[in-house]
Amino acid sequence: MPKFMDIHHGMKGVTAEQLDDAHRADLAAEHDEGVHFEHAWADPETGTVFCLSEAPSAEAVRRVHRRAGHSVEEVHAVPLSV
Amino acid sequence: MPKFMDIHHGMKGVTAEQLDDAHRADLAAEHDEGVHFEHAWADPETGTVFCLSEAPSAEAVRRVHRRAGHSVEEVHAVPLSV
Repeated sequence: MPKFMDIHHGMKGVTAEQLDDAHRADLAAEHDEGVHFEHAWADPETGTVFCLSEAPSAEAVRRVHRRAGHSVEEVHAVPLSV
Repeated sequence: MPKFMDIHHGMKGVTAEQLDDAHRADLAAEHDEGVHFEHAWADPETGTVFCLSEAPSAEAVRRVHRRAGHSVEEVHAVPLSV
């Protein structure tokens, strides 16, 4: 399954609890789309959140985030990893 | 040890072999700085590469990448993860 890294901006001051809640909302919304959000990392200082997922398409990633209530600014297909 | 996600741009068309070589160069250069590069993901279409590391500081991450021959556009401290 293709992997994606997506980037959210505008999350300045995000807390561990908020990141956890957002990730849980993604997990609750992902099944219909065949997406799985594996990890998320947050930089509260600049308000940047990175999510790593497996998904059939970038559009599926966007739909799950939208349904979970988060806008996402960039979705990158990352077919290469090490 | 703090975690960092850094972003490289301008790597359009990057191949699996080039990503591997770049990661190996980082690993060879990281020890003096107490940095460890854990993973890297590449989007050859937009030329974006993401590196996840453990490091004492963002500046240490930049120094290792510089020594390994890669410029890095953004280094984000990511104290929160899930």
